Amino acid sequence: MGDIQVGVFGLGVVGSAVVAIVRRNQALIRSRLGTGLRVKRAVVAHPAKQRAVELDGISVSDDPASILGDPDIDIVVELIGGTTVAKQVVLGALDANKPVVTANKALLAECAEEVFGKVYEKGLPIGMEASVAGGIPILRSLKEGLSSERIVEISGIVNGTCNYILTRMTAEGAPFDQVLAEAQQLGYAEADPSFDVDGIDAAHKLAVLVNLAYGTMVPYRDIHVEGIRTITPMDITYAEQLGFSIKLLAIGKLNNGEVEARVHPTLVEHEHLLSAVNGVFNAVFITGDNVDATMSYGRGAGGAPTGSAVVSDIIDIARSLQAGIRSKIPALSVIASELKAIPVMKMDHIRSEYYLRFQVLDRVGVLAQLTRIMGENNISIQSMLQPARSRHPDEPVQVILITHQAREADVKKSLREIAPLDFIAGDPQLIRIERIEPA
Amino acid sequence: MGDIQVGVFGLGVVGSAVVAIVRRNQALIRSRLGTGLRVKRAVVAHPAKQRAVELDGISVSDDPASILGDPDIDIVVELIGGTTVAKQVVLGALDANKPVVTANKALLAECAEEVFGKVYEKGLPIGMEASVAGGIPILRSLKEGLSSERIVEISGIVNGTCNYILTRMTAEGAPFDQVLAEAQQLGYAEADPSFDVDGIDAAHKLAVLVNLAYGTMVPYRDIHVEGIRTITPMDITYAEQLGFSIKLLAIGKLNNGEVEARVHPTLVEHEHLLSAVNGVFNAVFITGDNVDATMSYGRGAGGAPTGSAVVSDIIDIARSLQAGIRSKIPALSVIASELKAIPVMKMDHIRSEYYLRFQVLDRVGVLAQLTRIMGENNISIQSMLQPARSRHPDEPVQVILITHQAREADVKKSLREIAPLDFIAGDPQLIRIERIEPA
Repeated sequence: MGDIQVGVFGLGVVGSAVVAIVRRNQALIRSRLGTGLRVKRAVVAHPAKQRAVELDGISVSDDPASILGDPDIDIVVELIGGTTVAKQVVLGALDANKPVVTANKALLAECAEEVFGKVYEKGLPIGMEASVAGGIPILRSLKEGLSSERIVEISGIVNGTCNYILTRMTAEGAPFDQVLAEAQQLGYAEADPSFDVDGIDAAHKLAVLVNLAYGTMVPYRDIHVEGIRTITPMDITYAEQLGFSIKLLAIGKLNNGEVEARVHPTLVEHEHLLSAVNGVFNAVFITGDNVDATMSYGRGAGGAPTGSAVVSDIIDIARSLQAGIRSKIPALSVIASELKAIPVMKMDHIRSEYYLRFQVLDRVGVLAQLTRIMGENNISIQSMLQPARSRHPDEPVQVILITHQAREADVKKSLREIAPLDFIAGDPQLIRIERIEPA
Repeated sequence: MGDIQVGVFGLGVVGSAVVAIVRRNQALIRSRLGTGLRVKRAVVAHPAKQRAVELDGISVSDDPASILGDPDIDIVVELIGGTTVAKQVVLGALDANKPVVTANKALLAECAEEVFGKVYEKGLPIGMEASVAGGIPILRSLKEGLSSERIVEISGIVNGTCNYILTRMTAEGAPFDQVLAEAQQLGYAEADPSFDVDGIDAAHKLAVLVNLAYGTMVPYRDIHVEGIRTITPMDITYAEQLGFSIKLLAIGKLNNGEVEARVHPTLVEHEHLLSAVNGVFNAVFITGDNVDATMSYGRGAGGAPTGSAVVSDIIDIARSLQAGIRSKIPALSVIASELKAIPVMKMDHIRSEYYLRFQVLDRVGVLAQLTRIMGENNISIQSMLQPARSRHPDEPVQVILITHQAREADVKKSLREIAPLDFIAGDPQLIRIERIEPA
């Protein structure tokens, strides 16, 4: 077989890295693949624009047909992002019987039925390792390395921007807004940060993880998403005192025929390895019924790490093409007839432990009233923290309660009952606690 | 294609787990594979012996030919261990054109030429995920997920027994012998622990990792191996004070056309995630030129985690058989013609930072003499610790020096020059420091 020829849509940070890696590691790739690998064409919106990488030998065009219509292109790489043009490119490539590699978690999460419907219909491989946790080969682990496992839980730090901000807030006691502004200056956060800090990016990645773990296509809109804007240095300090770090976790687990799929700030015990994952790094904890706890850690973003995953996916598909097959591993881990619709569990139905912080006026009987209402709602308290008495009787004090496992509906109901009480001096804070247990 | 039929050699802890996992997760495996998976035959030394798992439906024999000669057996699983009978089984299976799955790191490390020679000659797949770090899919990551990467460094905690012992010694300040005895009672260490605590098991695993990372077959006997018997609670305490944990690391890296391949106790900075890997857990840090730092973590031993890796390998090979191919990925990451002989670097030639603990009599000028000799040997000191003055002038005190990067030959030479000095009151301790840098 001759050289494997690739067409790349998009020459941004990741696309440029792909071109650079393929060129720099050409000899290494040839030793592993047995043939050469070459980026033949690129399609971009502005072909004349200067790029971060040498493009000699690559035909650059703004016409998608230059790639999709070229019979010499073996593999199509989609690095445009978004769900409009990118979707046309991915579906168009599959229609042209070309395997696809993409880093596009928004597309894979929001348009799962369309994309995977076509993938299964065509029996073509789709490489999507770069869509979750950058260069960490976590999807491959789910589909191959853990193919013997019933997946018990996935708990991941999958957004580097949020982890960076929470790490800095923890180290410096600085408020969210200030750290966000600094992160933006350093290039760790976008000018419009909402995609990251509001948890949307993490929810996209969680959808991909859950779909692969359970052979399903969860309705993306049903995933519960909370970002980190409401986390205060005060919460971080109290959590630390109670033995926890605060992380934005993406959590997926099968629970009585439904799947819990939720993204929210989470208290993680200091003893747990996830609490030691700091800065822009990502880490995904997967528990299986036999293998028990596993964790994969690495850089979740950036051109080179993400480009690395793209190129490894290209090599994987190239190895299939050389072997004369399309794909031996189903795109969503299970064969088409075994794909199942699994509903996302309503948040009211989940059970969790909770960190609850109340702002109260320092009066007699406050704690008794709080705990009485909680008790009436089947919530028992495992620990309590009242950091310092206020100097002035009218200045609110903080009361932190850590609950035992409780139904979220009961917790919400108790908060509604507590809200109108006369000693309440502000909105309560609610942060879920995740104890990631062995299988 | 009909059910995939497997023959298993050995029904010990791992073999029994394989039988149990295949049975318990039968429906799940069928959904991922498209057909059933069945253990048809087992060969053991004592067929009448009671096993930890139900064997109904499995023909048990003590005759290897019952598996190797059965044309219905699609995949042979070798879980005997050792390098004698196991080698005959693996080579015999390959000669019979049957793909092999094995957890046998001793065989893969010590008989690499014979085993992989046959594997490449036959073009058959060999699954060996279970041979390193139990259920963690680390070999798959090296061969597939990081196939685009030039591997810069592998640093792994790959022996759970040693990590358990060092963790307990650190937590309790207890000496090696005492913790080893307790580990033996708990089943975390063998009655004859030398295979684990002397580093041999870790060296076997390192050979497998290095061979996959660099497409080579390192001469196993050239790997430098030190165990943990010489580590004292005192060293652990001083290392902690200096900001390090002590771990038994397996280290592999390409260095000027040679490969550093060494197993020894190592100081790891507290800030590094590997220092947070405690108890029986394993973790392998891999740095690639694009992906930068990655880590895989999980249970490195035990029936269920190791059995999980075996079954995932079986599924992987079964998926190939269903696709009508033998293997699309070369056994040692590179195609046959690209396998290279890479010599192991002599320890004298490595460069490292060192923790050196001297036992000296508390006299004037001791430090000056020590550092003068080090300086004459091109070794500069980055920090020093002299924990406490002795009460009695004839009782030795400890002096700990942390060196900057130096050549091992120079360090050894300086220790030889220091040994006969009159203030030296015992053998020095030498522990290497590994700072696992980004790419």
